[in-house]
Amino acid sequence: MRIALLGGTGDIGEGLALRFGRDTDHEVLVGSRDPESARDAVAGYEETLEAHGAEATVKGFVNEMVTDRADVAVLAVPPYHVGDTIESVADALDENTILVTPAVAMKRDDGGMQFHPPSAGSTTELVAQRAPDGVPVVGAYHNLPAARLADLEADIDYDTPVVGTDRDAVRTVVDLTNEIEGLRALEAGPLSNAAAIESLTALTITLTMYNDARDLGVKWQE
Amino acid sequence: MRIALLGGTGDIGEGLALRFGRDTDHEVLVGSRDPESARDAVAGYEETLEAHGAEATVKGFVNEMVTDRADVAVLAVPPYHVGDTIESVADALDENTILVTPAVAMKRDDGGMQFHPPSAGSTTELVAQRAPDGVPVVGAYHNLPAARLADLEADIDYDTPVVGTDRDAVRTVVDLTNEIEGLRALEAGPLSNAAAIESLTALTITLTMYNDARDLGVKWQE
Repeated sequence: MRIALLGGTGDIGEGLALRFGRDTDHEVLVGSRDPESARDAVAGYEETLEAHGAEATVKGFVNEMVTDRADVAVLAVPPYHVGDTIESVADALDENTILVTPAVAMKRDDGGMQFHPPSAGSTTELVAQRAPDGVPVVGAYHNLPAARLADLEADIDYDTPVVGTDRDAVRTVVDLTNEIEGLRALEAGPLSNAAAIESLTALTITLTMYNDARDLGVKWQE
Repeated sequence: MRIALLGGTGDIGEGLALRFGRDTDHEVLVGSRDPESARDAVAGYEETLEAHGAEATVKGFVNEMVTDRADVAVLAVPPYHVGDTIESVADALDENTILVTPAVAMKRDDGGMQFHPPSAGSTTELVAQRAPDGVPVVGAYHNLPAARLADLEADIDYDTPVVGTDRDAVRTVVDLTNEIEGLRALEAGPLSNAAAIESLTALTITLTMYNDARDLGVKWQE
């Protein structure tokens, strides 16, 4: 499978590129608005992957090109860039490309980090509104600590709930995600459940602040 | 310390009564609107505790009486009974009784369980609005699976975020909660963070539905 990471030079993009690169046989395409940034990032990722004994295929191009080649395209951009990023790659999206969004809109106040959703209810639902008709939209990776993900020295043990417009698309992303060592994807139903998932990101950061912790992630267990 | 469980004959009340009874030396007072129900519940709890080798002090009375004696009073009632329960015990509450609320208002829709907060923003904040002036209000135990808690055969390993109007009160409840084996209380700041915690309860139930799981609880980890 070909996995494109749009904005793959940023924090969550780096973590996903390195983990997909090391733990799976899929082709990882790193996208950026600036193709030179994408190539620079890829050079760094390849060095890291090589140092960890992985022979991964990672390539860097402009966002539109990686989207055009992708089976799964992850919008690894900040929430305020979600709209213009989708617009810039819209021609490369169709019903055969699963568009995945991990972005969460938050603001910090005196008490901690607060979920600050767009009027769509969640950034995940905003992505679905902005995506071209027929493109399956999936929300995933919202609650993962990006820095820990990008540190291949670190063992991870995190869950990530996955919501989507389409159950086949959700299952594809769940299966793909479960190939990463230490990540467990949990089906979480339709996009109407995305607000609760995004809200949990803010809560997790708040808990990090109050409990002298860092890089917290979430596990559900019986 | 004296811990009162108002509505302590219900599911989360039973779990907390049994765990506090078995794992701590505190006095557990089970309250109900009907004193006979309280006494019946206590008889059952004592039998369970004895079967598990615990010599716990558990007593049952009407809600107002247990509140009057309590250092910590847990409102273990459904969200739609929070208001009238507070009203019925208001005369027994003062600045020396910490009022703890675990209730979460939810409704089920086609996609899963949805957080359905009162206009106060959360049930925790509603409790703070309804409590007499000066009473410290703490939110805790929102995300714990009640049935698992009430099953003393089951080992548990769950986190519970704790918010409050007052940091001393939060710390008292954190310390008290950490005395229960397998529970870890995490400070989570002021009541403005309660909505995210309550929302997580709905998400956790949704995940239970989609992943063939039961009695899921949450852990945060690095």
